[in-house]
Amino acid sequence: MAHLTDQEIAAKAEIRPIQDIADKAGIPQDALEMYGKYKAKVDIHKVEGDESKSKVVLVSAMNPTPAGEGKSTCTVGLADAFNKLEKNVMVALREPALGPVMGIKGGATGGGHAQVLPMEEINLHFNGDLHAITTANNALAAFIDNHLHHGNKLNIDPRRVSWKRVMDMNDRALRQINVGLGGVTRGVPREDGFDITVASEIMAVLCLATDLIDLKKKIANIIIGYTYDKEPVTVGQLEVEGALALLLKEAIKPNLVQTMEGTPALIHGGPFANIAHGCNSLIATNTARKLADIVVTECGFGSDLGGEKFMDIKARKGNFAPDAIVLVATIRALKMNGGVAKSDLGEANVEALKAGIANLEKHVENARKFGVEPVVALNDFVTDTDEERNFVLDWCKEQGVRVSLTKVWEHGGAGGTDLAEQVLEVLGQEQNFKHLYETDLPIDQKIEKIVTEVYGGDGVIFTDKAKKQLAEIERHGWADVPVCMAKTQYSLSDDPSLLGRPSGFKVTVRELIAKNGAGFVLALTGDIMTMPGLPKVPSAVHMDVDADGNSKGLF
Amino acid sequence: MAHLTDQEIAAKAEIRPIQDIADKAGIPQDALEMYGKYKAKVDIHKVEGDESKSKVVLVSAMNPTPAGEGKSTCTVGLADAFNKLEKNVMVALREPALGPVMGIKGGATGGGHAQVLPMEEINLHFNGDLHAITTANNALAAFIDNHLHHGNKLNIDPRRVSWKRVMDMNDRALRQINVGLGGVTRGVPREDGFDITVASEIMAVLCLATDLIDLKKKIANIIIGYTYDKEPVTVGQLEVEGALALLLKEAIKPNLVQTMEGTPALIHGGPFANIAHGCNSLIATNTARKLADIVVTECGFGSDLGGEKFMDIKARKGNFAPDAIVLVATIRALKMNGGVAKSDLGEANVEALKAGIANLEKHVENARKFGVEPVVALNDFVTDTDEERNFVLDWCKEQGVRVSLTKVWEHGGAGGTDLAEQVLEVLGQEQNFKHLYETDLPIDQKIEKIVTEVYGGDGVIFTDKAKKQLAEIERHGWADVPVCMAKTQYSLSDDPSLLGRPSGFKVTVRELIAKNGAGFVLALTGDIMTMPGLPKVPSAVHMDVDADGNSKGLF
Repeated sequence: MAHLTDQEIAAKAEIRPIQDIADKAGIPQDALEMYGKYKAKVDIHKVEGDESKSKVVLVSAMNPTPAGEGKSTCTVGLADAFNKLEKNVMVALREPALGPVMGIKGGATGGGHAQVLPMEEINLHFNGDLHAITTANNALAAFIDNHLHHGNKLNIDPRRVSWKRVMDMNDRALRQINVGLGGVTRGVPREDGFDITVASEIMAVLCLATDLIDLKKKIANIIIGYTYDKEPVTVGQLEVEGALALLLKEAIKPNLVQTMEGTPALIHGGPFANIAHGCNSLIATNTARKLADIVVTECGFGSDLGGEKFMDIKARKGNFAPDAIVLVATIRALKMNGGVAKSDLGEANVEALKAGIANLEKHVENARKFGVEPVVALNDFVTDTDEERNFVLDWCKEQGVRVSLTKVWEHGGAGGTDLAEQVLEVLGQEQNFKHLYETDLPIDQKIEKIVTEVYGGDGVIFTDKAKKQLAEIERHGWADVPVCMAKTQYSLSDDPSLLGRPSGFKVTVRELIAKNGAGFVLALTGDIMTMPGLPKVPSAVHMDVDADGNSKGLF
Repeated sequence: MAHLTDQEIAAKAEIRPIQDIADKAGIPQDALEMYGKYKAKVDIHKVEGDESKSKVVLVSAMNPTPAGEGKSTCTVGLADAFNKLEKNVMVALREPALGPVMGIKGGATGGGHAQVLPMEEINLHFNGDLHAITTANNALAAFIDNHLHHGNKLNIDPRRVSWKRVMDMNDRALRQINVGLGGVTRGVPREDGFDITVASEIMAVLCLATDLIDLKKKIANIIIGYTYDKEPVTVGQLEVEGALALLLKEAIKPNLVQTMEGTPALIHGGPFANIAHGCNSLIATNTARKLADIVVTECGFGSDLGGEKFMDIKARKGNFAPDAIVLVATIRALKMNGGVAKSDLGEANVEALKAGIANLEKHVENARKFGVEPVVALNDFVTDTDEERNFVLDWCKEQGVRVSLTKVWEHGGAGGTDLAEQVLEVLGQEQNFKHLYETDLPIDQKIEKIVTEVYGGDGVIFTDKAKKQLAEIERHGWADVPVCMAKTQYSLSDDPSLLGRPSGFKVTVRELIAKNGAGFVLALTGDIMTMPGLPKVPSAVHMDVDADGNSKGLF
């Protein structure tokens, strides 16, 4: 095939009016709020169906590498494969942040012949959801600084304001800033910083809320900082949860689009997977469950990170169970996990594969630990050799785990029908899904369980700061919630350089933060960056638009 | 009548599908990109018509006061009155910024029975235009700081970066900040600050561009700062004008909505009237001119500020002439200009009116100075007395200027038919529109002319800094463009406390800045705030949304 970019392939694809897609999905026309011809927001109050009859297929992965694994591509391709097999299927995905699109080539709309459309609009401004979240987040920040400025009735300690501003941009210069400078008309001076929008607790809240009223309640619970007496201050005390929910009243509605093969897709919400829980909105997943017999959805990064959080946070709060887990792997990523440098990935190297496959082995074990049978999707690359492919396929057979060589990038749904059929086998069996822990387990024991059982580590080290925070969380009675682990995506451990299947490591928890809006306790490990930077030559310099609004350089 | 809020009145209004409004306006259905049922973006390439046959009615005003004059209300009401008289009319308005909506009660969608719908969506996030402008502005800021971080090939002096970040929020703590703190991974430290989005040069550029290609060209010309050698650095040198135009490809399309009486309305663009030129987009005005026999449009603040800039910037760049000028005045504002405090406005006070009417007198003279005959719209308030009304009506008759007592707030278009008929008289006459100056006049003489002829001052004082900047602007050959005056809206002078018709004053120009993207030189006078703050009790605390997404407390 010719070397077309993802954007060129998408531009050649036939796209159908979104009303037709809604018909296919069983969404009544009066539930649609059009955003142009090919995108719509869905009024979920007008969607009917029985969620409990739907099967949920979770697409997770081995630990990602800079080589790229194509998890979104496989998620879309698998849904298209079900569609090809004439199943009633929907796919539920995260929406891309705009900032990273400007930075490094690559988006979150799949690739090749397994993409969602219109890719350009989904990657830029998509129905305003991220902008609304940014606005609500920053309105709250303005209300806080305004409160400090006008007498500070709540006695907020400016040094203990934890609520940060956000921007949907990769902007390292905003990581650490001083605000309120320049004298008495310019606010109260304090240290501050911007995160990228997807790291906002508002995003996590939106993705875990069941409706607008629940959203408002959760927002009211958000802790924005502490008083001089070290007591927590919430959004509810500022009395602005109504205004913030109002700003989000459209953003909370899931967005209907389509895959290149006309499979209905709900794309909604996209919390950072290393700092937040990393899954599309519960509202989108549950709306898809009402409508489709099979819902294909993804989570961020590997089974250790996004996977564990899907099981222990999203599925728990949504009160549903995944019925099958797909683990995306590539020969390139396996080789990198076996010690090969990115520049050497073009060369066949079965020895490295043998070393690296231990990483996949742990992810297979993890899926089974949650009581759900995995299917390995070996996402094919042109540079892979038959010897390498056969090694992985044979290994899977030896391990007794289903595996399918998928070619959805090249062939769309047709390249994934074998994978779909294997997933159908799993869906035909009874699974025994269980959470890793119950929420009434003490926080430190929940983390211990995650580290030892899911990461394969020896234990947890809590810094003095984390210990102090743990005591405070327990004192306030905030501990009976899931833990949201913030950890590097590159390793099963908290050290991004430990590839493959490391052992004998301990994970250091350096901070514990009560995210009472989202309803979890955030455990920070390692050095997690919440505001990315741009590369020396941002992909923006290759972007352009013509007189008719046709873009180029997006991918 | 009952005391309903603007929002309650709007909620009771019948709203028609936007397709019907497009039909009425003569916009083909395939030019519509729906944003829900009641808003659409318009593909201007699919709109046909002869712009030259249309008459443009500009709604301007006397100097505004904290009492509020209702210019947007009169603009909408006048258009509805033409509609009632079965004229083919459209109204072109600025879109509201979201930030101020969170701060002080009041929006930019008119009031009472002269509003545009859906008011809630227009006031919040309206089709994403302001968010796209914010994003493009801040992407550029990130590209600049990224350039500084990665070797600074262009030799940009971090102390001379003039491009600021923006946010559509009233957030005083961001007025002056330090960015890039925290060490080498966090950018290059420098002083910075945020403006409100409507103050961004991107907004001015969008509002003066004729199409996407013109937009891109103008963006490339924006000066973002200076090198260590004090040479200008442009967006074009950073090679990101394509990416920024791409981010604006939807925002550049005008938005079609409707008034409460079904008059088609284009609402598009809203540059700050005291720091920028303060008019809706040229694209919206010219699209309306293609479609309607009469286009009613507004400009920011009084004839001295938004009015002068409409004539000398927008009409010049758009190569059209206003055919009539409406000057909105209220008895309350006239009394304030006559020295009455806001708290005493409820009392009849003809003496104060006599003193304050000198302000209106100057605005009448200003309209005639541009060769266009004004009509005074005396916007009626319930607290006005007949004696006061008669004083103003008689004064107008003595001055030989048309006047109409308008009651559009209470009665919609029916309350403005007399005004509309008087405007029709003016439209039936030949006008002699002329710009105040030609662009080849030296910058200081252009400003001198504006100050002496439009403001009624004695002359201009240039600070040493402004003189130095003037020399630089001339040296670079950037002087042959209109001047955009940044001045307080409250006074004809640069001192907001000088009400009525001050004389014997000089205006101090403290800075001159080449806005080569927008295509004007900005002249800063007085202390113009480019980032508002929130009041002690922001209106946000009164806002809420219910389970069905119905809002309250917006107005």
